[in-house]
Amino acid sequence: MRKLLIRAGTLISASETIQADLLVEGEKIAAVGLNLPANGAEVIDADGKLVMPGGIDPHTHFDLPMFGTVSSDDHYTGHKAAAFGGTTTVMDFVPQDLPTLKENLDAWHAKADPKAAIDFGFHMNITRFDAQTASEIPGLVEHGVTTLKVFTAYNGRLRLSDGEIFQVLRIAKQHGMLTMLHAENGDVIEVLTAQALAEGHTTPEWHAHTRPAWGAVEATLRAAALAGQAEAPLYIVHMNAAGEVDQLEYARQRGLPVMGETCPAYLFFTIDHLRRPDGAKWICSPPMRTVADNNRLWQGLAAGTLQVIGTDHCPFFFNGEQPIIYEGQPVAIPGKELGRPPFVAHDDFTKIPNGLPGVGDRLPILWTYGVRAGKITPNQFVALTSTTAAKIFGLYPRKGSLLPGADADLVIWDAERRLTYGLAHAHHRTDYNLFEGWELVGFPEKVLLRGNLIVDGERWLGRPGQGRFLRRQPGAPVL
Amino acid sequence: MRKLLIRAGTLISASETIQADLLVEGEKIAAVGLNLPANGAEVIDADGKLVMPGGIDPHTHFDLPMFGTVSSDDHYTGHKAAAFGGTTTVMDFVPQDLPTLKENLDAWHAKADPKAAIDFGFHMNITRFDAQTASEIPGLVEHGVTTLKVFTAYNGRLRLSDGEIFQVLRIAKQHGMLTMLHAENGDVIEVLTAQALAEGHTTPEWHAHTRPAWGAVEATLRAAALAGQAEAPLYIVHMNAAGEVDQLEYARQRGLPVMGETCPAYLFFTIDHLRRPDGAKWICSPPMRTVADNNRLWQGLAAGTLQVIGTDHCPFFFNGEQPIIYEGQPVAIPGKELGRPPFVAHDDFTKIPNGLPGVGDRLPILWTYGVRAGKITPNQFVALTSTTAAKIFGLYPRKGSLLPGADADLVIWDAERRLTYGLAHAHHRTDYNLFEGWELVGFPEKVLLRGNLIVDGERWLGRPGQGRFLRRQPGAPVL
Amino acid sequence: MRKLLIRAGTLISASETIQADLLVEGEKIAAVGLNLPANGAEVIDADGKLVMPGGIDPHTHFDLPMFGTVSSDDHYTGHKAAAFGGTTTVMDFVPQDLPTLKENLDAWHAKADPKAAIDFGFHMNITRFDAQTASEIPGLVEHGVTTLKVFTAYNGRLRLSDGEIFQVLRIAKQHGMLTMLHAENGDVIEVLTAQALAEGHTTPEWHAHTRPAWGAVEATLRAAALAGQAEAPLYIVHMNAAGEVDQLEYARQRGLPVMGETCPAYLFFTIDHLRRPDGAKWICSPPMRTVADNNRLWQGLAAGTLQVIGTDHCPFFFNGEQPIIYEGQPVAIPGKELGRPPFVAHDDFTKIPNGLPGVGDRLPILWTYGVRAGKITPNQFVALTSTTAAKIFGLYPRKGSLLPGADADLVIWDAERRLTYGLAHAHHRTDYNLFEGWELVGFPEKVLLRGNLIVDGERWLGRPGQGRFLRRQPGAPVL
Amino acid sequence: MRKLLIRAGTLISASETIQADLLVEGEKIAAVGLNLPANGAEVIDADGKLVMPGGIDPHTHFDLPMFGTVSSDDHYTGHKAAAFGGTTTVMDFVPQDLPTLKENLDAWHAKADPKAAIDFGFHMNITRFDAQTASEIPGLVEHGVTTLKVFTAYNGRLRLSDGEIFQVLRIAKQHGMLTMLHAENGDVIEVLTAQALAEGHTTPEWHAHTRPAWGAVEATLRAAALAGQAEAPLYIVHMNAAGEVDQLEYARQRGLPVMGETCPAYLFFTIDHLRRPDGAKWICSPPMRTVADNNRLWQGLAAGTLQVIGTDHCPFFFNGEQPIIYEGQPVAIPGKELGRPPFVAHDDFTKIPNGLPGVGDRLPILWTYGVRAGKITPNQFVALTSTTAAKIFGLYPRKGSLLPGADADLVIWDAERRLTYGLAHAHHRTDYNLFEGWELVGFPEKVLLRGNLIVDGERWLGRPGQGRFLRRQPGAPVL
Repeated sequence: MRKLLIRAGTLISASETIQADLLVEGEKIAAVGLNLPANGAEVIDADGKLVMPGGIDPHTHFDLPMFGTVSSDDHYTGHKAAAFGGTTTVMDFVPQDLPTLKENLDAWHAKADPKAAIDFGFHMNITRFDAQTASEIPGLVEHGVTTLKVFTAYNGRLRLSDGEIFQVLRIAKQHGMLTMLHAENGDVIEVLTAQALAEGHTTPEWHAHTRPAWGAVEATLRAAALAGQAEAPLYIVHMNAAGEVDQLEYARQRGLPVMGETCPAYLFFTIDHLRRPDGAKWICSPPMRTVADNNRLWQGLAAGTLQVIGTDHCPFFFNGEQPIIYEGQPVAIPGKELGRPPFVAHDDFTKIPNGLPGVGDRLPILWTYGVRAGKITPNQFVALTSTTAAKIFGLYPRKGSLLPGADADLVIWDAERRLTYGLAHAHHRTDYNLFEGWELVGFPEKVLLRGNLIVDGERWLGRPGQGRFLRRQPGAPVL
Repeated sequence: MRKLLIRAGTLISASETIQADLLVEGEKIAAVGLNLPANGAEVIDADGKLVMPGGIDPHTHFDLPMFGTVSSDDHYTGHKAAAFGGTTTVMDFVPQDLPTLKENLDAWHAKADPKAAIDFGFHMNITRFDAQTASEIPGLVEHGVTTLKVFTAYNGRLRLSDGEIFQVLRIAKQHGMLTMLHAENGDVIEVLTAQALAEGHTTPEWHAHTRPAWGAVEATLRAAALAGQAEAPLYIVHMNAAGEVDQLEYARQRGLPVMGETCPAYLFFTIDHLRRPDGAKWICSPPMRTVADNNRLWQGLAAGTLQVIGTDHCPFFFNGEQPIIYEGQPVAIPGKELGRPPFVAHDDFTKIPNGLPGVGDRLPILWTYGVRAGKITPNQFVALTSTTAAKIFGLYPRKGSLLPGADADLVIWDAERRLTYGLAHAHHRTDYNLFEGWELVGFPEKVLLRGNLIVDGERWLGRPGQGRFLRRQPGAPVL
Repeated sequence: MRKLLIRAGTLISASETIQADLLVEGEKIAAVGLNLPANGAEVIDADGKLVMPGGIDPHTHFDLPMFGTVSSDDHYTGHKAAAFGGTTTVMDFVPQDLPTLKENLDAWHAKADPKAAIDFGFHMNITRFDAQTASEIPGLVEHGVTTLKVFTAYNGRLRLSDGEIFQVLRIAKQHGMLTMLHAENGDVIEVLTAQALAEGHTTPEWHAHTRPAWGAVEATLRAAALAGQAEAPLYIVHMNAAGEVDQLEYARQRGLPVMGETCPAYLFFTIDHLRRPDGAKWICSPPMRTVADNNRLWQGLAAGTLQVIGTDHCPFFFNGEQPIIYEGQPVAIPGKELGRPPFVAHDDFTKIPNGLPGVGDRLPILWTYGVRAGKITPNQFVALTSTTAAKIFGLYPRKGSLLPGADADLVIWDAERRLTYGLAHAHHRTDYNLFEGWELVGFPEKVLLRGNLIVDGERWLGRPGQGRFLRRQPGAPVL
Repeated sequence: MRKLLIRAGTLISASETIQADLLVEGEKIAAVGLNLPANGAEVIDADGKLVMPGGIDPHTHFDLPMFGTVSSDDHYTGHKAAAFGGTTTVMDFVPQDLPTLKENLDAWHAKADPKAAIDFGFHMNITRFDAQTASEIPGLVEHGVTTLKVFTAYNGRLRLSDGEIFQVLRIAKQHGMLTMLHAENGDVIEVLTAQALAEGHTTPEWHAHTRPAWGAVEATLRAAALAGQAEAPLYIVHMNAAGEVDQLEYARQRGLPVMGETCPAYLFFTIDHLRRPDGAKWICSPPMRTVADNNRLWQGLAAGTLQVIGTDHCPFFFNGEQPIIYEGQPVAIPGKELGRPPFVAHDDFTKIPNGLPGVGDRLPILWTYGVRAGKITPNQFVALTSTTAAKIFGLYPRKGSLLPGADADLVIWDAERRLTYGLAHAHHRTDYNLFEGWELVGFPEKVLLRGNLIVDGERWLGRPGQGRFLRRQPGAPVL
């Protein structure tokens, strides 16, 4: 069995920091110790470097058809970008487009399996609920899918009624599954959007005005209350508003089994970014809010009210009609320009594909602007971007851990490296980066997937198909 | 013009307490003063008595068809019971049963106008919302109806969707109207009720289990958020759960234009009362909760988080098949027994008419168990049961005030009278009283409606038709 | 008996607003009514004007020796300034300089009685506590003084220890008296002030840095806890920090008998004003804070967490060495310049007399920038500046009320009058005004003290000695 | 070097749980791994057992003179009791009795060093603050003492003034030290105690009445505010009241650098225990509170508001005059009976030595009644009783960790062992146990100190002097 000894790194887990050697045997961490004997193992000298569990991003959308186009990263390019950013596990959402849940899973496997370059899991969207769907949900567990996603927004498309969500939660509870929820008020959005368009408000900024924070806030409590009444765990994705954190805290303090995720974009950007000439770059749902919201989210992360930072990675080109060269090939996929003339008669924010790149940015950005900025500790960084997600999503201790027995998914981090970040460093298949020009201190140097070096500085050593589908266990804890 | 001098009473308004004379000329308070000259006025000596504005109950359901029967007080018997309890103004809800709002109003006028014994207003239920209804709402104002009521519960019957409620709020806002809301989660109730019945849980207690407090709590924030997004005032009726007060407080602290009402039943009773053999007597919606909820509601009243105490008076007989003698006539109206054999095959809490008597109990019960118990002051008592409702519902300063120009709706209160309260003292047309046997200190002695003595001790001096419909003004304040 | 009929004014009390006539007989309001007969009374036409109870300022310091000088308004000039601003009752603090409390009261009477131009009461400072003082406190009640003031700051001068404050509270409780408290942490101030001076930080801004908000915040909870443990009411003066409002709210929600006052300066000014070249004008204790503090105070006022707005009027000249002409006489009283060269070797913020003018500014400023700005209602304005103080300080319903029997202390307010406010309008005996140049809409037009017109537009009709000492009753309520 | 392989245990750290082998080389954990080769190491089979870092109790009082007697465990018997309960590190408080801090340390070393059976550190009490003390504090760091303790209670004995505490905090800050604080209001206690005795209230219950919770609550915020103003970390010991947790949460949410500890007694007992005939057994300061306080403390632990569970171990005999046989020797040390006749004329709660046994009870009790009861997770158990204390007190990662390089302080826990706990199992040198008769599931089976087995079931393998003084590092983090 192949052996690899990572020597003298500073190991950072969700709770502890030590300098030690880490021995990998085959795909697994075999031991953590002082002065471990090499015994013929390949040696990586990590002295002066940090060693952390590979990032886990539980919220991605690769190769996802929407808005008459498709998210511009597929399961290969997206995985590769993730890996360069230090992330070794992703979880992607399977749309409920085909008649049976199994067919949907199969379709997503067909797209992902041959391309996967890092390990991955699936969440199943439940956007149509009827007796058949209800009967099929429990079967997902044997296919390794233990998580469902529901929406309180996107009327007529993705939204379930409160009663349907309640039933999904109850079924999930019975089978040890976790329900994830997009919290906005679809009804209000529908009314405001129609009105905005009718009144000629068509610029990106109106994307935010038509999806007000109060809708997200009340939907958070609403969903938490449904979960409480169902006695079923709930995970609210991409929390973005101060009031959502307030309500999450309120619900948790009263014992409701509810957890929350935010994304880097909501920590750093505001509606002011939508007001820029290139505001479409920041269009996703829920929208960017205010500085006060940014701050409350940080506070919620530091205090443990929020558990996870995912990305909701769903990239589009800003100018999709202009091919870029990606891995030597010209790529042109329609993108944000679909909301601008000549693709529409006049600016129309409702036609701009919703989504942001981010799977590769997450760790580097959060290291410099979270850890170094003093907002979270290195251990919280690991917890928020890796370990806690592993626990909540039924992958612990296989993923997100530095302890023996865990998959040797590792990132060796150069905490001293300085760079000016942007498109040149991110490997997303798109033509812009939200953090263009940000100064970073600290960056992944080497990334290992189950013991295999897949990123070495700027070199990509991975390959399509090497990523493995993660069959997850039901009964994960509520944290 | 007829003159009446009420001499030397202790006048208690929402904010002040003084000993003074009060002069009534015709239907109005003409002056408040010291040693006012009688000048031929009839004199009532109120020395040693309290003089307060007549109570205003903004939440009654007289003569309302439901559950295959009808609420057992009509607009005469209910008004009379109200008057004996010190209340001189009521507001009743008009169901949206007929095609146009105007027809519904007319129908309710036809029932109420000839019987009314105290002054009254109408709220219009909006339980069906479409373009026609939307277009008709503004016209209500010219008919003196400035308030709308909507429901988040009673799926398939009374409930509007969030989007419809949002639109109602926006229309209301435009025309200076106030939207009132019943806050529960209809979807959850529907699921839990079906399940309870399927599992054979048929006793009154299950009425509470199938309408959990968390549904009311989230609906409170949901509605407040809708109001905030519509910038329209909102009044949440019959608040009953601690969490609702928490959320009302949260919303108000953040500037949302939302107000709240509770009812005496929610201050004194709990699910334990539903567990009694005669538990059906306490069945209404929302249901009774817990002692912790009672306490939080009191705290919310004292702190000003809640503004109004109404009754949601909607009485039924406990044994409707057994006639009682009411005003010398035998009366038999089907009631709570509709949920028991032989009227149903076995106990069925869903068949028990929902509603409680209370319009006459409100002031006496709150005086002894609120004011004398030290939970609220005499001035808060007046504010919560009269003055604030007058303001919120567009009747100020005509009603709810002791100042000159106000209607001379007055209650002269004997703060020393001791009695053991119950069916014998309440004048509701039903066969039970929720406060049977409670010891009271303090009771209305005389009640005046626009200067006319209508209750004098145990004597009833009122008559059908003397009550006047109150055309209310739009643009009332948010308090 | 002299009669005065104020006709057709809009009467605004703490809770109600009506258009009515108000009859004054002698010194009292005799009646409020519609179309009251004149019967030979003198008539003031108040149609189109507002009629409110005269303001009550429970926090003034007239003719108070400190910092080697004296506050520049005496009991005549200060009363006159108050009256021009619509205030007809003031309460002044008696320092405990002489051996017995009675001697201190006598000394203050000697200064105040002959000069008083409006009605006034005294609070007794307890800044030295021993067995003798303890034994003398109850005797204050028979002298009409029912309130005590203690300090947690000014080590070695005014401060009592926590244990002494606790004992004062317990004595106060026994005799129905109310304890008032200045909340800062004297120990911290002492340390920081010495350090600042040692480090050469001598500018007015350092007055704020050396009296940090956290000291006021903890002292608020500390004092509230002492009051709770003593079961004695407490009134915290001049609250100025957001955290103080948080803690006041926390304490009140848990049933502690504690109330709070703020002052206009804390609602409008910040540490930035101390940074101005003329920053000394804003030096008082506690110091100006931040915009966030201003906002939380407003929110606390609107929500009823804070009960009273006083002024802590304690004016000094900015350039006391330059005489101004006041009532035709040159006046020169050393003032803020005492903290500047040549009066000290170099700038020394600790030598600047602490205190601000404000007794006359309070009502006009709060009307325009509180009521018209939508932060408080007209009724809240009356409550916060008059009625509630009357209740808390044992003057209700004699003062602060428009009801019959009350003293006819009235302000007739021209809500339409526009002016640019400043030194020219304020009648304080000083050479600057903090609100210089502020645009006002609404101003007192006529002011009556016990039925006597003392201000008529710009004319002063009052005279020294006409103000009456108010013997207050113990046992006032906790609101 | 001696090697020990602990095979196949379930390793539980503050954040992770895995089954693995743990290799000890000499005194240190050398490696954690799967199927680690024995290579001649001694092997302990831990399959089916839990392996956790040894407990750290940062709050003990061994051999402490007080109340005319001495706490009944010395540094040997107390260490031994700790070890049997799974605790391998204790920190003891050094009284400031002798002229210089160094002399006090020396004196404590003289008592502790020869007896120590587990590792130990010292905190230095600062109960007398003057220029000399101020100058000596920084020197403690070189003696390995980085923590100071101050009191807001015990007037005239231990208490510092707020200003002195503020100065201690500032000095501590400068030198990377941590200040610990006992939060009560000494002034109020002094007044209430004198009064209680004067009124003949002498039973143990009055110990609680004379030390009210509000004093602890305000002292918590007061101290947190002082820490905030000094920008210095603070650790509040033995938190016991719900309001303290509220205020700790408030302070932490606003960024104040403050942490909190509670003790098992405050989680399980109430004033009702003081009302028992043997109530003196529960007398310690602060006193037992109410069930609501117990619950809020649990909630604060689960939510991370509180960081540490210590014991405040300070045992006394209940009947000290009756010798018990301890390790074969009769031991008689005066104890709780000092507050009863004939030692005093009549019952006198002020004469009862303050303190409880607990150092050995902590882990077993918290495992069954915390972890198994579902109130905290196994990882939180480790964090609260070991890891976090190591971090806060500058011992991390040497102590409190299972990672390589850490001291091999380990407890092998039999999670299935059932026993009825009490005096027979605890090894405290006293005659009673507060948890007498409590049913436990789970108990320490083997305990290792730096790789040496010191407890093996019921066998004691330790010896006096083997415990090592821990020189701690300054600059520990605020968690």
